[in-house]
Amino acid sequence: MARINEHYHKLAAGYLFPEIARRTSAFTAAHPDASVIRLGIGDVVKAIPRPIVDAMKEAMEEMGHDQSFEGYPPPFGQDFLRQAIVEGDYASRGVEVDIEEIFVSDGSKCDSGNIQEIFGTDNTIALTDPVYPVYCDSNVMAGRTGAADDSGRYAGLAYLPCTAENGFMPSLPEGHVDLIYLCSPNNPTGTVMDRDELTKWVEYARAEKAIILFDAAYHAYITDDTLPHSIFEIPGAREVAIEFRSFSKNAGFTGIRCGFTVVPRELQAYRADGSTSSVHAAWSRRQSTKFNGVAYPVQRGAAAAYAPAGAAAIEELVTYYLGNAAYMREKLVGGGIEVFGGVHAPYLWLKTPAGGDSWTFFDDLLNKAHIVGTPGAGFGAAGEGYFRLSAFNHREAVEEAMERIARL
Amino acid sequence: MARINEHYHKLAAGYLFPEIARRTSAFTAAHPDASVIRLGIGDVVKAIPRPIVDAMKEAMEEMGHDQSFEGYPPPFGQDFLRQAIVEGDYASRGVEVDIEEIFVSDGSKCDSGNIQEIFGTDNTIALTDPVYPVYCDSNVMAGRTGAADDSGRYAGLAYLPCTAENGFMPSLPEGHVDLIYLCSPNNPTGTVMDRDELTKWVEYARAEKAIILFDAAYHAYITDDTLPHSIFEIPGAREVAIEFRSFSKNAGFTGIRCGFTVVPRELQAYRADGSTSSVHAAWSRRQSTKFNGVAYPVQRGAAAAYAPAGAAAIEELVTYYLGNAAYMREKLVGGGIEVFGGVHAPYLWLKTPAGGDSWTFFDDLLNKAHIVGTPGAGFGAAGEGYFRLSAFNHREAVEEAMERIARL
Repeated sequence: MARINEHYHKLAAGYLFPEIARRTSAFTAAHPDASVIRLGIGDVVKAIPRPIVDAMKEAMEEMGHDQSFEGYPPPFGQDFLRQAIVEGDYASRGVEVDIEEIFVSDGSKCDSGNIQEIFGTDNTIALTDPVYPVYCDSNVMAGRTGAADDSGRYAGLAYLPCTAENGFMPSLPEGHVDLIYLCSPNNPTGTVMDRDELTKWVEYARAEKAIILFDAAYHAYITDDTLPHSIFEIPGAREVAIEFRSFSKNAGFTGIRCGFTVVPRELQAYRADGSTSSVHAAWSRRQSTKFNGVAYPVQRGAAAAYAPAGAAAIEELVTYYLGNAAYMREKLVGGGIEVFGGVHAPYLWLKTPAGGDSWTFFDDLLNKAHIVGTPGAGFGAAGEGYFRLSAFNHREAVEEAMERIARL
Repeated sequence: MARINEHYHKLAAGYLFPEIARRTSAFTAAHPDASVIRLGIGDVVKAIPRPIVDAMKEAMEEMGHDQSFEGYPPPFGQDFLRQAIVEGDYASRGVEVDIEEIFVSDGSKCDSGNIQEIFGTDNTIALTDPVYPVYCDSNVMAGRTGAADDSGRYAGLAYLPCTAENGFMPSLPEGHVDLIYLCSPNNPTGTVMDRDELTKWVEYARAEKAIILFDAAYHAYITDDTLPHSIFEIPGAREVAIEFRSFSKNAGFTGIRCGFTVVPRELQAYRADGSTSSVHAAWSRRQSTKFNGVAYPVQRGAAAAYAPAGAAAIEELVTYYLGNAAYMREKLVGGGIEVFGGVHAPYLWLKTPAGGDSWTFFDDLLNKAHIVGTPGAGFGAAGEGYFRLSAFNHREAVEEAMERIARL
């Protein structure tokens, strides 16, 4: 008889964001007149900039004529986009990345969930706690963990707690680990790693022959130019890191789906006999077998994000959301709430008032102030007692939300 | 140290189509003036129909305005598209499918590659031979096979040979199997299963508590209305089957990326203790964790494919490609070549002349006639001695290709 993947039964609950959507829908069904403000899932709300929309429409029109029709996309991305990425995101910061090392995809959520497939199930995985749930859940599904305990921690994973006490900067693992997920600027805590922090991790990975899976989906929110945007700004990182990038939170592509992953050619993993095995070759094989590329019009839009008009519009968008974050910080701190993040990131990470548990605070905020946030516990055991608010909304909504919280 | 997924090293060669692309590029680099006709990869060439392009452009424009901007897509698809699918593809043929059973995705290649993840690694897999390589390779990567032998067959898989001798209709497995991949109209052989054939498989699956993974990506090419388009036209299939569909070969979406998978709520797999486990729940969890939905403009385009103007345009496209196939059949048969398929499918499956091996015939055809096809051996050991030609090209190119073959 057909057997289910037993590991799925280890998963503690539904994926976090559908659970939030479920509770929100239940609330709005019961209170159809309530004006709910969504600061939860971290979805952008502003229009995609005009030059990018125009590029996508123009490319879509090309698909309507035999002479300019484009069929199957190249599996790893159109060269015009890969070249724009190399120049706009890397060469411009003095980082050497080759276009063959860029793998364009339908988003960094997918890539950061799929990447573990190319590694053996016998690797030890290190995750920060709290953490973006995809890193954890995808490894549970693949069988790299035991069961979850009452706090939601899975046996076999190396958790790196990030709390106010350590400034949300994970310490190096006490023992050896093989694969390390890092995210900076961080989702959910909104904190950012500087060169020294990142260098510490690159050196650890080099010493341990470990690989860092570095999620830089929020790099556009870094406003201090001395902070690294890419892990490849750290010497030696090309031998030990993979980087994920997204167009979701800069170009407003949450609803368009485009991101990319950088896998340096030097990067090696190891076979059972100790010989090396190219990670670039494995990811190429994975993507060409289980993925089929990104729509040409979408790639034209992503490329337009690097042209001067697109880049300027994106900077304006990012500035807008960072303005929201600054406003929220000010109001929340003024209201006596302890707030972290929100400076180089679109997320604010609050201590729940009076140390309450985070799902209770979620329900309270929804029921009493009609505001949707994200409970810290949804990101891991060490997120308990914290709460994430996203700055992705219109200014008026953010102002109204801060007023409602002040009234609580 | 970070360990690679050892199973990747079992994969015999690169994924088939990149290998064809590589040989074709090498040829065109060496012969820049050659006019190469591509009847290989099965990529469509005709423009996307106007009503569909217009729907996508209109939706793209909506993304450029705050009031009509759409963020993260619903993880399983927009209800307007799921409803159009239910009505246009299923209710219209008397098949009951609920919109909650439709999972919209970025293509049936991805879905048919990813589906195995929700099943245990201890399942026995049955595949036709020849077969679409994704079904096989995705299971090799997941560790459900041993090593490949000299013919490219992996230990542990149950191969179901399809040759001229059995009319390309697979026999039931001799022993028990758990998961069965079927594709009708078939890629690569172009043959189609009738109700009796499909019923045989549904009954086998019911008796064995097996699950059929049914790829119906080419259903639009069925011209005989008594032939089933969906496995769910067979009584009892809802308890034993998953179906994959695509907009690639009907609406011309190879370069847009959209398809869907139907997972009935009744479908159960089994846990180690013999209890049942919902396959619908597992696929929901997989998709919400490792996938993030399809762009709103793409879904608007797919929905337009079901409206009268879109549906009429698609019928015209399918008729055009089927006309190519009929023309090719006539010319090839007239030239003394044994040809199968190409009636309810866009693929023709030829016996290689003089029983030559299929990669040699590929190289011959490329070097002497400047035509790209697909060697049968690329689809499996039983494909050796056969060759696939696709009808996806402009009529003039098809005519020119048939002339060149006649001259050979």
